[in-house]
Amino acid sequence: MNSFGRIFKVSLFGESHGDSIGVVIDGVPEGIALEREDFLFDIGRRAPGLKGTTARKESDEPVFLSGIYEGHTTGAPLAVVFRNENTRSADYAQFDAMPRPGHADFVAAVKWDWENDPRGGGHFSGRLTLPLVAAGVVAKKVLEDIDIHAELIEVGGEKDASRWEALLEAAAQEGDSLGGIVECRVDNVPIGLGEPFFDSVESLISHAVFAMPGVRGIEFGDGFRAPRMKGSEHNDPFGPDGPAKNGAGGVNGGITNGAPIVFRVAVKPTSSIAKPQRTWNFKDKKMDTLSVKGRHDVCFALRTPVVIEALTALVLADLV
Amino acid sequence: MNSFGRIFKVSLFGESHGDSIGVVIDGVPEGIALEREDFLFDIGRRAPGLKGTTARKESDEPVFLSGIYEGHTTGAPLAVVFRNENTRSADYAQFDAMPRPGHADFVAAVKWDWENDPRGGGHFSGRLTLPLVAAGVVAKKVLEDIDIHAELIEVGGEKDASRWEALLEAAAQEGDSLGGIVECRVDNVPIGLGEPFFDSVESLISHAVFAMPGVRGIEFGDGFRAPRMKGSEHNDPFGPDGPAKNGAGGVNGGITNGAPIVFRVAVKPTSSIAKPQRTWNFKDKKMDTLSVKGRHDVCFALRTPVVIEALTALVLADLV
Amino acid sequence: MNSFGRIFKVSLFGESHGDSIGVVIDGVPEGIALEREDFLFDIGRRAPGLKGTTARKESDEPVFLSGIYEGHTTGAPLAVVFRNENTRSADYAQFDAMPRPGHADFVAAVKWDWENDPRGGGHFSGRLTLPLVAAGVVAKKVLEDIDIHAELIEVGGEKDASRWEALLEAAAQEGDSLGGIVECRVDNVPIGLGEPFFDSVESLISHAVFAMPGVRGIEFGDGFRAPRMKGSEHNDPFGPDGPAKNGAGGVNGGITNGAPIVFRVAVKPTSSIAKPQRTWNFKDKKMDTLSVKGRHDVCFALRTPVVIEALTALVLADLV
Amino acid sequence: MNSFGRIFKVSLFGESHGDSIGVVIDGVPEGIALEREDFLFDIGRRAPGLKGTTARKESDEPVFLSGIYEGHTTGAPLAVVFRNENTRSADYAQFDAMPRPGHADFVAAVKWDWENDPRGGGHFSGRLTLPLVAAGVVAKKVLEDIDIHAELIEVGGEKDASRWEALLEAAAQEGDSLGGIVECRVDNVPIGLGEPFFDSVESLISHAVFAMPGVRGIEFGDGFRAPRMKGSEHNDPFGPDGPAKNGAGGVNGGITNGAPIVFRVAVKPTSSIAKPQRTWNFKDKKMDTLSVKGRHDVCFALRTPVVIEALTALVLADLV
Repeated sequence: MNSFGRIFKVSLFGESHGDSIGVVIDGVPEGIALEREDFLFDIGRRAPGLKGTTARKESDEPVFLSGIYEGHTTGAPLAVVFRNENTRSADYAQFDAMPRPGHADFVAAVKWDWENDPRGGGHFSGRLTLPLVAAGVVAKKVLEDIDIHAELIEVGGEKDASRWEALLEAAAQEGDSLGGIVECRVDNVPIGLGEPFFDSVESLISHAVFAMPGVRGIEFGDGFRAPRMKGSEHNDPFGPDGPAKNGAGGVNGGITNGAPIVFRVAVKPTSSIAKPQRTWNFKDKKMDTLSVKGRHDVCFALRTPVVIEALTALVLADLV
Repeated sequence: MNSFGRIFKVSLFGESHGDSIGVVIDGVPEGIALEREDFLFDIGRRAPGLKGTTARKESDEPVFLSGIYEGHTTGAPLAVVFRNENTRSADYAQFDAMPRPGHADFVAAVKWDWENDPRGGGHFSGRLTLPLVAAGVVAKKVLEDIDIHAELIEVGGEKDASRWEALLEAAAQEGDSLGGIVECRVDNVPIGLGEPFFDSVESLISHAVFAMPGVRGIEFGDGFRAPRMKGSEHNDPFGPDGPAKNGAGGVNGGITNGAPIVFRVAVKPTSSIAKPQRTWNFKDKKMDTLSVKGRHDVCFALRTPVVIEALTALVLADLV
Repeated sequence: MNSFGRIFKVSLFGESHGDSIGVVIDGVPEGIALEREDFLFDIGRRAPGLKGTTARKESDEPVFLSGIYEGHTTGAPLAVVFRNENTRSADYAQFDAMPRPGHADFVAAVKWDWENDPRGGGHFSGRLTLPLVAAGVVAKKVLEDIDIHAELIEVGGEKDASRWEALLEAAAQEGDSLGGIVECRVDNVPIGLGEPFFDSVESLISHAVFAMPGVRGIEFGDGFRAPRMKGSEHNDPFGPDGPAKNGAGGVNGGITNGAPIVFRVAVKPTSSIAKPQRTWNFKDKKMDTLSVKGRHDVCFALRTPVVIEALTALVLADLV
Repeated sequence: MNSFGRIFKVSLFGESHGDSIGVVIDGVPEGIALEREDFLFDIGRRAPGLKGTTARKESDEPVFLSGIYEGHTTGAPLAVVFRNENTRSADYAQFDAMPRPGHADFVAAVKWDWENDPRGGGHFSGRLTLPLVAAGVVAKKVLEDIDIHAELIEVGGEKDASRWEALLEAAAQEGDSLGGIVECRVDNVPIGLGEPFFDSVESLISHAVFAMPGVRGIEFGDGFRAPRMKGSEHNDPFGPDGPAKNGAGGVNGGITNGAPIVFRVAVKPTSSIAKPQRTWNFKDKKMDTLSVKGRHDVCFALRTPVVIEALTALVLADLV
């Protein structure tokens, strides 16, 4: 379903090549100052134009349909839309016969019986993360002092950021793509957020994060290193000011313990690559060669930190 | 909240040292043959008694309160309870002053203002996974041909299972504990399960799995190796019978693609250890030494595969 | 579905002739003093034994499985069950062939493909209102000063209560049954409860009240007289202390306005009657005569005020 | 909250005098033919212009933002918006000091701390029923053969429709308003719809119907006459083709029995009247005289049958 949250609740809609995409945000407290400018910074962080991101010029101007009156939220649902422009639908015609490896083309066609909008990934497009970022801006306002910061810590297996540009360029030359790892850290978290048994903080954050296309894994605190540690190493003893270390990533028993929430997200390499791939042609019923032309990110992970912040903000705004 | 699922819906209740724990399962189709014996195998897989698991004798006998009539489900909610016995509440008295590192003692006390039941981890106890396993048995019946199998693939960083016993014994000697990694694989998955944008298959499975106490990470398919691969390596081209490899773990765009769903779960080392830990004494307001006596698993990861199967079954039963 | 509420959430289970019936209440704040005695008064008001109610001796003793520790709620889910006893299942055998007019026998058999538990109305039995009353007791505690009072204002069309006994006796003699109207009034209601657009106070209360078997209508304030009034008569002008009259029943635009919430509920006459009814015999495929023996209320409306209070309390506890 | 439905789910947004109002419909099956023309008939039935309705010219042109591709639904959320035009916000300035009797002005101001959009009733405006009607058009398409028909059966207490025009004219002359009763009937209902305990068909329909502003009561089948009947009169015996009469209004035990669903809705007289009303002036803190100028329906009940059809369609589309 296209809604998330119980109290602070977002409903997402739109296909990348339809009229518009947007989001309805319900449960926004009244009286929050909110204007167009508040959205531009985060929207800009998601925008293409960085090295390794797509050359498409997207229309990223938010239009507010409801929920704001004289510069403040009203308590009624807030609807924000973005018009779609600058799409080249013809780019996508061939994928009916040859669904792109790594994409939802195939499963969407089966699930919706070939009635879905195939253009630009339709409702699966990464473009849907744009209204999410807008919802995240609102959520961050609700969270006030809670500070969410995500950043890329690895590209193509390389941790040293000074080498990323060369890697991206090389991959672009080959017509190939790279993945990355994003780390997100939340500071000033009140103790006690999380609603076990089923709505642990990790459950909610991972639920939200795996909604972002292209995520392959998530780990909190020591993450996949934890099973290789002993209890005496992994446990976080308490000190006078709370946990003295943070192997748990800020969460015990599904509930925040006052330490920063820390988690990492594995983002796959972009699926759309120019490099020829041998794959099945469903029309001709034979193996065939596919080269995905279009304009695509070499490494879309570069644009995801702000999306992960937004998703985290949605979860926390629903909990506080 | 203590419910999970939209159509096939479980509501969990109970504290480990209260009268009973149990689960109400709503949305069970009518007419499924179901008897006590169906539950014993999976309940047995979760039971202590294996090397490296606690010596407590738990009462694991399921009692059916409703929803079954003449050996078949009726379509009405199915309630299953397990009585608690053999508890030594005195074991837990000291944790008021010194919350156990890695446990929910501290956050639960803050969140519920010291009104929670502190005995045995209260509502956070691993014992709550017992009714989950029972719910999983029902879910598996609903899933019919879909086959879910989870197993431990790593203990204390060691992949070779023949060395686990020695590792467990050594850790027990030290009064320490070990973690593990569980791999779960689902076969015979129909194409098209998953409800993006927010209810992707990975979102739902990770939501459920992180409800299990002690999980630090989850990854699908290539997982955290994916960001180190190129698109041309990670992509799964199609062959005549569906995806020709399974780097995505059976899911594209949040929807099952017909390949097996494959994921791995990082389970932390048991938090309760006899080995002395320096931690804060909240009563005396000074650092102090804590040695958790009780009877605890050296490596509770050994008991988790059947729980992870159950959680996965709940997700899939809700989707089909 | 068998759950109700978003924050204060109840999950109901059980069939009248199974092992037990019960309720799991999630979202109960911690630290509320609660003991067995708190439940007995309301449970007693629902009990049979009054003139015009069934002669069955039900087991109405609440058993608490979880959520209470040392006489106070813990913040974890509270499970209460009632064992079923004293049932004569044989009474119900004939209804397979001849579903009782006015009952759910027929629809339940079709919906659940004849797998449902037919004894005593199964999951549809009025006995399920017993755990509801228990949940209502907890909800009333949560509501503190908000005072909910329901009472019968009409039996068999007669408003004068002194004549009810004679009416009931006469109906019993004929083997027939009577209905009634219950009025519920909530005092000390804070202004601002209700979450339009869809969760207006009237929406939530009517949703809950129509879950009670045998309700045919509900009206707030002037109710069905309102459409016969002019705006100038029906409108509630404001005075210095809030609305000066209460034609709206305490709710404007779906939100409480500080005046008492007032509504009336139409309860049908008991469907099970000894008086012979001509109805279809589905086995013999012909019209036949049915006389429902068993032990049934002449007028079950007499037992419903406390149930309507409980349902109202559930709604309000979820809103505050 | 502003969402309704579990599977077929609508999210409503907008204030009557903001930029736009609209609805996002999630869970629409793919492949349904749908075009602008499908919406015009029902939208027209809700439009002002009839005797006794407001003279405002509203912009009732639906704009589709997503979910439709080449004239068919795609399975992704369908967003429909309507731009607001032709509003005279100045009309509403005075209601800050003197909230209109019968309106949500007062409760909305208290609830949202005077941050709500007061113009035109803001998010409470009857104009929000316009996107509901659009959602109803989609729901009716989903329902295929199930036929929903609502009509006004009483205006100002008068059942004879030929006298309504004179009544309306007289009320308009006095600056007063009238109410009405709407009857809704659903034919070709499959047996078995409804999900007790809490989601009985009556629960869901009444929940939806009470979301419409100005409803005071709802009754099914014999309704408020049922409590005045004996069981032998009110019961619906079965005949060879299902229930032989329809005192229950098509529902037994919360589940449809195959007979038409029949219910009646009490709609209050319009609250906004030109006739002077004595009410509290919250600014001057004294009783004062209010005459609501603006352009308002004498009897908005005339415009509600199509809205009640839409709400009923939403409920049934979610159940089938």
